[in-house]
Amino acid sequence: MKPWEKNIRTVVPYVPGEQPQGRGLIKLNTNENPYPPAPGVLRALREMDGRLLRKYPDPAASALVEGLAEFYGLCSSQVFVGVGSDDVLAMAFMTFFNSGKPILFPDITYSFYPVWADLFQIPYKTPALDGEFRIRPADYYQENGGVVFPNPNAPTGIFLPLKQVEDILDHNQDVVVIVDEAYIDFGGVSARTLLDRYENLLVVGTFSKSRSMAGMRIGYAFGSPALIKAMENVKYSYNSYTMNLPSVLSGVEALKDKEYFYETVGKIVNTRERAKSRFKELGFKCPDSSANFLFITHEERKAEEILQALREKNIYVRHFNAPRISEYLRVTIGTDDEMEAVYDFLASWLVTLSR
Amino acid sequence: MKPWEKNIRTVVPYVPGEQPQGRGLIKLNTNENPYPPAPGVLRALREMDGRLLRKYPDPAASALVEGLAEFYGLCSSQVFVGVGSDDVLAMAFMTFFNSGKPILFPDITYSFYPVWADLFQIPYKTPALDGEFRIRPADYYQENGGVVFPNPNAPTGIFLPLKQVEDILDHNQDVVVIVDEAYIDFGGVSARTLLDRYENLLVVGTFSKSRSMAGMRIGYAFGSPALIKAMENVKYSYNSYTMNLPSVLSGVEALKDKEYFYETVGKIVNTRERAKSRFKELGFKCPDSSANFLFITHEERKAEEILQALREKNIYVRHFNAPRISEYLRVTIGTDDEMEAVYDFLASWLVTLSR
Repeated sequence: MKPWEKNIRTVVPYVPGEQPQGRGLIKLNTNENPYPPAPGVLRALREMDGRLLRKYPDPAASALVEGLAEFYGLCSSQVFVGVGSDDVLAMAFMTFFNSGKPILFPDITYSFYPVWADLFQIPYKTPALDGEFRIRPADYYQENGGVVFPNPNAPTGIFLPLKQVEDILDHNQDVVVIVDEAYIDFGGVSARTLLDRYENLLVVGTFSKSRSMAGMRIGYAFGSPALIKAMENVKYSYNSYTMNLPSVLSGVEALKDKEYFYETVGKIVNTRERAKSRFKELGFKCPDSSANFLFITHEERKAEEILQALREKNIYVRHFNAPRISEYLRVTIGTDDEMEAVYDFLASWLVTLSR
Repeated sequence: MKPWEKNIRTVVPYVPGEQPQGRGLIKLNTNENPYPPAPGVLRALREMDGRLLRKYPDPAASALVEGLAEFYGLCSSQVFVGVGSDDVLAMAFMTFFNSGKPILFPDITYSFYPVWADLFQIPYKTPALDGEFRIRPADYYQENGGVVFPNPNAPTGIFLPLKQVEDILDHNQDVVVIVDEAYIDFGGVSARTLLDRYENLLVVGTFSKSRSMAGMRIGYAFGSPALIKAMENVKYSYNSYTMNLPSVLSGVEALKDKEYFYETVGKIVNTRERAKSRFKELGFKCPDSSANFLFITHEERKAEEILQALREKNIYVRHFNAPRISEYLRVTIGTDDEMEAVYDFLASWLVTLSR
């Protein structure tokens, strides 16, 4: 080992879902939206004056911040934006979790949380979800350096009712509590409405799921002006210009088309509910999902086996080889046609096996 | 102070140059390129299939990495990309400067270095440039936790000859040495050619200056596969998808048009050399610049006074209120027309004052 290698920060990086390319794939492994972004987004990008790219973008991304504030009925000083909600969450960990005490998040949750904790050398504890994969608020009454959980949780899809989110907040007035709402638009109720009462609450969201813009990398956080200011200071100490011109322009347009937003979200919710019954008919179980995916397990077949069978048909879903959930598959809700192809294949495959 | 406020990371953020908007401005304060990006970049963006944005981008940004490797005659495993060179530098600081020993950078240099050091709690020392603002390699012979300097240096524009860069490397075999080449294309010789011999050398570059793409946020680093792998691990522990689809597509196109690249860089170099003589005629001094800016000081007039007079004419240049350089202004090289307007105004303003 070279001397300089000794001082490299040692990390075990997050492993994102595969991004296979090619035609004829049914890609249900990274919770992408099956529908394109709003027509206004496509138009704005086509008409963007590329010559403006010679200049730095607005470091405050004000147009996007103001668009979000308006859409969600907040003040601009309550809004932070970043390069996807991962960037926003990473900055929030860096900004707020510096007490030296362990932060708390569920044992089954977004697998990036322990990675950020390791990166920033933040100790953590992971209270176990109950037998039905639900967060138990009482687990979060203990002393800690901060709390973070997704709502709906990933990869389970289970929504924690707002009363219980509030219970966690009530028991955690001395630390920052982050509610990561990447999937909120598919059926949950946002903790945004609690912002007025909890100055230590940070609500994180993304354009990657409900707004069909994973490829543009836009995430945001809502919080009290004190929290947002602290995050901005860290952001300006890290990279002054995180949001490029296409992100700002297209993000603003996405927010303008409410009709398209509610329509596509509605379609996905309907497909999800149908998927739930179809999977049940095929012998799967899954918790009630408030997200754009289902977390399914089969009564008879192993998850690994189903995963491989699907893969051979160019159908990609996500499997987490982790304690308690290794027999589950996370299936993103695609179009009705894509989902029909999945049911059809599974139906015939399961029949063949049972012969 | 609320209890949670005690655990906020305290930082003194970097202050980027102003981004004034509006017509009729002559904006020479943030070292932007006065020419638009290559025509292929504009075309690729206009023709981009916005529907693809529903999917996550390639987390490895392979097309861009391979384009850079090809342009610069390197292997893909020697190339890292990020959201502007600030993102790349921030990750490099986080990845490599963990020894607890002070890192070294010049007293007069890119003012983001001390900000990153503070953000990541890295101690640092700042050896003074000599009386003519030159880096003295012998200052970097002392024990340290890493070395970073821009070449050409900012805001002076002075290029450190490669022999001296090599001298610094020879005396720093135990730490990572970062040569920040944001301005290299305007007259310097890249340390890239030393990569084969120094496994601990990281060379950082950007599309913001010579490729006219500040608004797109594309930066990169070249280094040994060991250094690049370490940075990738940190990147995947921070944000899996930093480069959005427009960045990757347009970055690839920018690299394809070598003719446009050399032509616009050549124009800026010519304008800079003319500017140097014109400023001299007006009573300014400046070091020889190898960058797209000049660092000028006037024999009789105070920098603050000139700054204000220019501002009143909607001409923006950059002033750093810092020791040793408070009588200097950093003037970005604009188009010939913009520069003529600056000389004309200064000529008449100086005459009026001397009456």
